Amino acid sequence: MVELLEDERMDRLMRYDLDIIQSPSVFSFSIDALLLAEFAYVPSHDRAKIIDLCSGNGVVALSLSQKTQSKVYGVELQERLVDMAERSIQHNELLESVEMIQGDVKEAADWFGYDKVDVITCNPPYFKVDETSKKNPNRHKAIARHELTINLEDIIKVSGDLLKMRGRFFMVHRPERFLEILDLMKKYKITPKKVQFIYPKYGKEANMILIEGIKQGKIEGFKILPPVFIHDEEGEYLPEIKGMFYGDD
Amino acid sequence: MVELLEDERMDRLMRYDLDIIQSPSVFSFSIDALLLAEFAYVPSHDRAKIIDLCSGNGVVALSLSQKTQSKVYGVELQERLVDMAERSIQHNELLESVEMIQGDVKEAADWFGYDKVDVITCNPPYFKVDETSKKNPNRHKAIARHELTINLEDIIKVSGDLLKMRGRFFMVHRPERFLEILDLMKKYKITPKKVQFIYPKYGKEANMILIEGIKQGKIEGFKILPPVFIHDEEGEYLPEIKGMFYGDD
Repeated sequence: MVELLEDERMDRLMRYDLDIIQSPSVFSFSIDALLLAEFAYVPSHDRAKIIDLCSGNGVVALSLSQKTQSKVYGVELQERLVDMAERSIQHNELLESVEMIQGDVKEAADWFGYDKVDVITCNPPYFKVDETSKKNPNRHKAIARHELTINLEDIIKVSGDLLKMRGRFFMVHRPERFLEILDLMKKYKITPKKVQFIYPKYGKEANMILIEGIKQGKIEGFKILPPVFIHDEEGEYLPEIKGMFYGDD
Repeated sequence: MVELLEDERMDRLMRYDLDIIQSPSVFSFSIDALLLAEFAYVPSHDRAKIIDLCSGNGVVALSLSQKTQSKVYGVELQERLVDMAERSIQHNELLESVEMIQGDVKEAADWFGYDKVDVITCNPPYFKVDETSKKNPNRHKAIARHELTINLEDIIKVSGDLLKMRGRFFMVHRPERFLEILDLMKKYKITPKKVQFIYPKYGKEANMILIEGIKQGKIEGFKILPPVFIHDEEGEYLPEIKGMFYGDD
């Protein structure tokens, strides 16, 4: 059993048979990360290069490792979160399958090389920097949520650098950034191929988007996947969403 | 009672208390037109300039006229369809409210002037020209469905010319053209503001999109509206859709 620090706890992610170290004061994954892990296609074989950018406590990298024989790399700037992720990896006995790299995501192509990666996933900071984000006393959470150390363009640029031709890019983000995401993907030659909109419940506006792009992919064949709803009328998770936490049975 | 030609029939659109002349061999409106008429916001007062482009048998223009005191203009290239629309206008006693203009939509800014229009709606031909569309023996239908006489860029360009600053553009189209629509709207300075995706049923990919743009609008505040489903599991129209044909009661 690995050591838990301060207010950390171990959360069970039954879907992938994983225990994930969380901390309410430092970093806890949310449904966004699980939606991304579910949405992302990774080849099951062992010859793919798979990188999760802005990896946080490693929940996406750990989840992806359960869908592939290939090694999954997680890149995360914050040492405290890398440490959490590494203890989760150790606890789940996935040292051969998942590796965390502490560093600036913007420099990832210097370590991994250009045009070498098959799959990139990213659950990035969603919010533009404003006065509130600069003053947030919780630095860990501020960095995870606001574009203080990296922004959307940085992420899409480095993804374009990393991905090989026909490599796939998967990201979760917010609808209000959707047009900007499409523009930046175009700029860095990642062709949008599939989008899925997440609605908090029936009759409400979308509050999340999942997007898949292919490096230098063809323009034709853009698809809007079936919608995902999170809650039912009573505010309970719908069965598909429960499945992401607890498995499908 | 106006005269009906050949295989024409009069269809009742209870939602707007209208009778619309249809013809299976020449032109029949589909759910797309009704979704557009429902989606488009028109001011209720009598001082707006409202134009429906690619107006077909006038169903959108006629429907919009029931939501506003302002005159609605329909522009349609095909004389046969303009004639159908004009007889529908006459039959519904809306000669003061709706006016059809027969001509090439591409030239609309020459008649209406530049930067003068408050609202544009358009249910355009969806499909790019290919060998099949050129050979289609039914010329009326081929022109309404395929980009034989006008294409997406022509429509968005003329809309950009026609709309005054802050004027609104509403269009129904197909998801596979979505990225192209966004690029062209940007090119002609119509800022996308709202998108609504139409899914044939729960669990299926979207097969229609509704998009609203504002001429020289702000980039911020892009919204994905609640999804619309057309059919239930048994293939019946859902209540919202029935309401578009039959009214809400």
